[in-house]
Amino acid sequence: MTPFARIAIIGLGLIGSSLARAVRARMPGVALTGFDRDGAVCETVRRLSLLDSVAGSPAAAVAGADLVVLAVPLGAMRAVGEAIRPALAEGAILSDVGSSKQAVIDALADCVPPGVQLVPAHPVAGTEQSGPEAGFASLFMGRWCILTPPPAADPAAVARLADFWTRLGSRVETMDARHHDLVLAITSHLPHLIAYSIVGTASDLEDVTKAEVIKYSAGGFRDFTRIAASDPTMWRDVFLMNRDAVLEMLARFSEDLAALQRAIRWGDGEALFRRFEASRAIRRAIVDAGQDTGAADFGRSHPETPATTPGA
Amino acid sequence: MTPFARIAIIGLGLIGSSLARAVRARMPGVALTGFDRDGAVCETVRRLSLLDSVAGSPAAAVAGADLVVLAVPLGAMRAVGEAIRPALAEGAILSDVGSSKQAVIDALADCVPPGVQLVPAHPVAGTEQSGPEAGFASLFMGRWCILTPPPAADPAAVARLADFWTRLGSRVETMDARHHDLVLAITSHLPHLIAYSIVGTASDLEDVTKAEVIKYSAGGFRDFTRIAASDPTMWRDVFLMNRDAVLEMLARFSEDLAALQRAIRWGDGEALFRRFEASRAIRRAIVDAGQDTGAADFGRSHPETPATTPGA
Repeated sequence: MTPFARIAIIGLGLIGSSLARAVRARMPGVALTGFDRDGAVCETVRRLSLLDSVAGSPAAAVAGADLVVLAVPLGAMRAVGEAIRPALAEGAILSDVGSSKQAVIDALADCVPPGVQLVPAHPVAGTEQSGPEAGFASLFMGRWCILTPPPAADPAAVARLADFWTRLGSRVETMDARHHDLVLAITSHLPHLIAYSIVGTASDLEDVTKAEVIKYSAGGFRDFTRIAASDPTMWRDVFLMNRDAVLEMLARFSEDLAALQRAIRWGDGEALFRRFEASRAIRRAIVDAGQDTGAADFGRSHPETPATTPGA
Repeated sequence: MTPFARIAIIGLGLIGSSLARAVRARMPGVALTGFDRDGAVCETVRRLSLLDSVAGSPAAAVAGADLVVLAVPLGAMRAVGEAIRPALAEGAILSDVGSSKQAVIDALADCVPPGVQLVPAHPVAGTEQSGPEAGFASLFMGRWCILTPPPAADPAAVARLADFWTRLGSRVETMDARHHDLVLAITSHLPHLIAYSIVGTASDLEDVTKAEVIKYSAGGFRDFTRIAASDPTMWRDVFLMNRDAVLEMLARFSEDLAALQRAIRWGDGEALFRRFEASRAIRRAIVDAGQDTGAADFGRSHPETPATTPGA
């Protein structure tokens, strides 16, 4: 028995389309509907046969669904919630995949009719790519999915959604929404902000050309450009919606960076060494926890023949 | 004809041992000697048969070599230079693989006897791993190697070293040492400093546990931990030796980050979106230039079964 019989996914980008693929792969009997406001995305989803049917509106998509997942940018949650409210079926679970959870609870508070349970969720998974063609079924395998049910949520609904994500290969954790927002501010939001920022700094230099930045990016910079290539709309909304936690983490980061800056200015090699040495333990723990590959260089390939011709 | 007949490598860690392997693979006739001050490293190099002979001292290693490559931390360059000076052969080229080049020129200025050419070099390649077992022959394939000959260097010596690195699969560029230091400050040194710093910030939080940081690191943080796992001694020396360029780039980065911080505080979504959108072009250019993989997520594997058991 799959936990749901009919699932509607609103928003069919990287995450929404990966969810559709994962459901198809793991729960082949489930009826899948969905909607995206971008007609080209709907066309692609039809062409790839990712859903049983692409609906003409959010309300039409959710009619009769016992699970509705909103996979839209945080700033679009309220409008979608209002559009689907009248069409939500009695007994349905309304969920999402947003990266900031208190914002989702606030946005959807007025969009949950009696008999519908709101159980927000955040699968901590993704890539820097966007759109339905970038999705894949195993995106959630081995990754954590954090559920942040409001205090009044029905435990049975929470358990049902936990079962759903577990069947997709995720590990499930339940957490208070505000605590989630603090945790993700440091593990996800601040890293993205910093990556976007340094890519901007590098682009704006006068003494170093953009061509030089690109050529010599293998020294470390290229690692930052990956997450700085993530969807700008999604990330704009994350920073606007999780403002306080991001500003708090950013203040701490800036203090710590200033301390390293001071150590460099005054030639305090011991302070630098101590800080640098402590970082290896965290990396090892992340690899040991199955949250990253232990292969050198993320397992990037180092073929005996270069990808492009030298000198080209 | 290989450009050199006998090569000595001082320092047999990730880079030195990779160089030995690359020479073996590409120039099998060349005699390879070397030295490392760590006896355990020498033992490993002997066990792996990476060199024809591991010498008992730096001076013994370089005797008779027509190319000497120092692959030691920047802070050790001068001491090694002084140790090998009396043993350097007439006509030899003295080079290195350090990440900051004016510092190398300054450190070795008094260690170059008449008849020896100093041609510093920086292969922009590496991984977060350290030691002779982490090295591999294809590390330099398709990567740039930057030569920073002092103005008085013999062009023939520079051409010979350029030929050498080209045969190892690298693309070679010649650059003024100070300009190199500025370019690498943004493409390599600042990214490492920021990565070390945010890993420190994440470790020191009170409201978010280290276990949570590790579990949810797939949201972006784990990308930073890779380069923050790099060799602490090497990186301490880079920041001490390229101080001015790093402080300059750090000041610019902090300004740009403060501008994003302000946009978040005041809810300026348009400013955030503009900055974020511009970053994608740089990522594309880096992939197009063959300096990173275009595969999503650095090509990390997403197997259908997770690496470790869910819930474990």
